[in-house]
Amino acid sequence: MNKLFLDFDKGNGLIPTIIQDYQTHEVYMLGYSNEESLKKTRESGTIWFYSRSKKRLWMKGEESGNILEVRQMYTDCDNDTILIQVKRNGNRVCHTGNVSCFYKLIE
Amino acid sequence: MNKLFLDFDKGNGLIPTIIQDYQTHEVYMLGYSNEESLKKTRESGTIWFYSRSKKRLWMKGEESGNILEVRQMYTDCDNDTILIQVKRNGNRVCHTGNVSCFYKLIE
Repeated sequence: MNKLFLDFDKGNGLIPTIIQDYQTHEVYMLGYSNEESLKKTRESGTIWFYSRSKKRLWMKGEESGNILEVRQMYTDCDNDTILIQVKRNGNRVCHTGNVSCFYKLIE
Repeated sequence: MNKLFLDFDKGNGLIPTIIQDYQTHEVYMLGYSNEESLKKTRESGTIWFYSRSKKRLWMKGEESGNILEVRQMYTDCDNDTILIQVKRNGNRVCHTGNVSCFYKLIE
């Protein structure tokens, strides 16, 4: 993967990264990738992010054990968003106990 | 919807907004909502975004006619991302002619 291929500049070094089930296509969460976390994701085959609040890399599931295995990775037409299809190892993704982080209906 | 419910501050007034098919769950694109575009989305039932490059609101499909009808809207556990399930009116979403903006496989 060419470093220049993805546009890290638009988001000040971070690219929003959508995590989706590889089979059901349920959207589980959105995290942020920087060049280093994306490298770790590609090398390990499990999801790593950059945490804006903790200001460090973290592996999804590092505390809960609910890691996510990479199946396919895509970028969009203008290379400033990533979509990763994953296989869930645990029975949930969200730290709240919900399967997906998107469990709150708006109105 | 309480204005304080969604966290617009974390992204300097913008919330990343994932657009997904309400039936197949295919992810079509990611755009950015500010308070005004979200208000227009909710009032009109069609997708509006804030364009970071054009620095203005835009309705998805305003040029192509491929508008997106809102079916369900969700936010995530920490209220800083939105997921909207939509019905496609046209036969594609991406301006490149692809159905989804996520047509580029990484590696």
